[in-house]
Amino acid sequence: MSIGIVGGGIIGLSIAFELVERGVEAITVYDRDPSQGAGLVAAGMLAPTAEANFGEDALQELMSESMRRWPSFAERVEARTGVSIAYRTEGTLLVALTADDQAEVDRLIGFYRRAGSPIEPLSGRDLREREPLLAPRVRGGAFAPGDHQVDPRRLLRALRTLPVRFEARDVNTLSTLRDDVIIVATGAAAAALTGLPVRPVKGQLLRLRGPEPLLRHVVRGIAGGRDVYLVPRADGELVVGATEEERGADTTVTAGGVLDLLRPAADLLPGVAELVLAEALAGLRPGTPDNAPIIDRLGNSEVIVAAGHHRNGVLLAPATAAAVAETVVDKATSIDISAFGAGRFT
Amino acid sequence: MSIGIVGGGIIGLSIAFELVERGVEAITVYDRDPSQGAGLVAAGMLAPTAEANFGEDALQELMSESMRRWPSFAERVEARTGVSIAYRTEGTLLVALTADDQAEVDRLIGFYRRAGSPIEPLSGRDLREREPLLAPRVRGGAFAPGDHQVDPRRLLRALRTLPVRFEARDVNTLSTLRDDVIIVATGAAAAALTGLPVRPVKGQLLRLRGPEPLLRHVVRGIAGGRDVYLVPRADGELVVGATEEERGADTTVTAGGVLDLLRPAADLLPGVAELVLAEALAGLRPGTPDNAPIIDRLGNSEVIVAAGHHRNGVLLAPATAAAVAETVVDKATSIDISAFGAGRFT
Repeated sequence: MSIGIVGGGIIGLSIAFELVERGVEAITVYDRDPSQGAGLVAAGMLAPTAEANFGEDALQELMSESMRRWPSFAERVEARTGVSIAYRTEGTLLVALTADDQAEVDRLIGFYRRAGSPIEPLSGRDLREREPLLAPRVRGGAFAPGDHQVDPRRLLRALRTLPVRFEARDVNTLSTLRDDVIIVATGAAAAALTGLPVRPVKGQLLRLRGPEPLLRHVVRGIAGGRDVYLVPRADGELVVGATEEERGADTTVTAGGVLDLLRPAADLLPGVAELVLAEALAGLRPGTPDNAPIIDRLGNSEVIVAAGHHRNGVLLAPATAAAVAETVVDKATSIDISAFGAGRFT
Repeated sequence: MSIGIVGGGIIGLSIAFELVERGVEAITVYDRDPSQGAGLVAAGMLAPTAEANFGEDALQELMSESMRRWPSFAERVEARTGVSIAYRTEGTLLVALTADDQAEVDRLIGFYRRAGSPIEPLSGRDLREREPLLAPRVRGGAFAPGDHQVDPRRLLRALRTLPVRFEARDVNTLSTLRDDVIIVATGAAAAALTGLPVRPVKGQLLRLRGPEPLLRHVVRGIAGGRDVYLVPRADGELVVGATEEERGADTTVTAGGVLDLLRPAADLLPGVAELVLAEALAGLRPGTPDNAPIIDRLGNSEVIVAAGHHRNGVLLAPATAAAVAETVVDKATSIDISAFGAGRFT
């Protein structure tokens, strides 16, 4: 049985990984330019708490399920590829600058509790004890010990060493492929291939660099109503993300995007100002009308879609990959993906 | 008579130009990497008004003299090289965001008047009539019709077509050169060559791009105490500059530098947010203890120094170049450079 995976991003390659883990051999990954994937502008925060305003219990359940799978997924990827993917479990701090920002953090704390995710409210002083370089006027926040992180670039680097065939070509129509089973994991580009309503959601992200890390934890911050997350890497890199813009397939870096990231970052963590701006980039997340993914077989065909993961592609990769691999190999999956059918949009 | 010019930046090449104009033929310009010149991070504002706190009447006089020379200098450079250098005479607007910023503009207006430079105070409404895209809350400012602009990159491009010999080498000691006359125009690097107290002053600058210009005039703005200038080019580029940092020979682009430029730029001209961040760069201006240039022969030698022009290199290029060229060719200059001797620092 030959498998064709269209799209060599986080989702496509995670599926390839789970297929390889199950002994599948004839796998081809089609991607003309893997550097265009949304994963390259992801920070790798693994925050398995959906906001209640999605009204999406099913998405919450999939996020929790995928989070439970992350530790073993990380271990297995590293064991098979020999590449470290920097999975870190220090947990995440929610940080509010002002009283209004604190109200927003309190709202988030409610989501964590509702989802059964561990969350511990902290005062400004508590926060500065854990992260001494936070701004003195930080008002308060919380500690989310269950929110972890991984380095998406390292994950991609690891998965690219898998024993599969990589073919650098654009697939404009599925009928040109001769594989027995075809998996569409092209993110926002899935719309053109399948007709499904996946749209690009622009995200801008910065990579800053300093001699040593300013933070030990991931910080999910709110400063003057502006959201930002700060993801420290062990080598002194600090990832600052990410805007969320409905601008079609535009991947330009704008002055406004950079400002919207740097301003709250420097407000919360003044030492940011001294860091080198190593890279500013923009990518396209795949959004659906309800911003939950599509993980489904198209009709009775041998085409399976795994796309539309929006901001949650890295978090949802283990569950998505396992569900698709099981569907291919065993014709059924133990993971409940019934809510993520393509049919909900037709 | 052979002339060696060490340094192929704005000052060095302007001197080469004036020598060529005077019929000098055997000119060699030594520069290993002309892309490192301060001119590449200059916006090209020609603002011939020195701040009184320099206490520098002589500098004010040299700035005025150089400004008077700019129109014909631009015309002659374009005539000889055939390259447009985008000399523009729309004038500059001083723009204040808040009441405190207005006080600073009022202080600047005082300097203009003291220097005899034309300046016309304007209300916020007056400013928005001239530049409709300025922020509605802009408080007031002034119009400086005598402050012009030129594109330093085009000026460099033009001067690089001069019929002189370019030698891409580092000159670490002047004794290796065999030219009859040696001109040191290496900016901050003049310190190592001559022992004179020229230090690097870091400047960060952004190039933004949009489909069409947001401004007609150069804007010298103050927003919440943060200085910024906005220099529009005809092709839709907007140059945003520039920080002034005492950090030694550091040319990294920092998060804080970018933020210090983008924040006041977007406060004064909200449309900035939509522009593409095309380039962020840092360069080193050459500063002296009094931030006025050194234009002088070293003792009785055949070494002439023209360095230390700090923020005013582009403005001061015509007068500096004429003074040096006259000194070389005629052994005397009609321009009063007596205040800019090397001896004032020894």
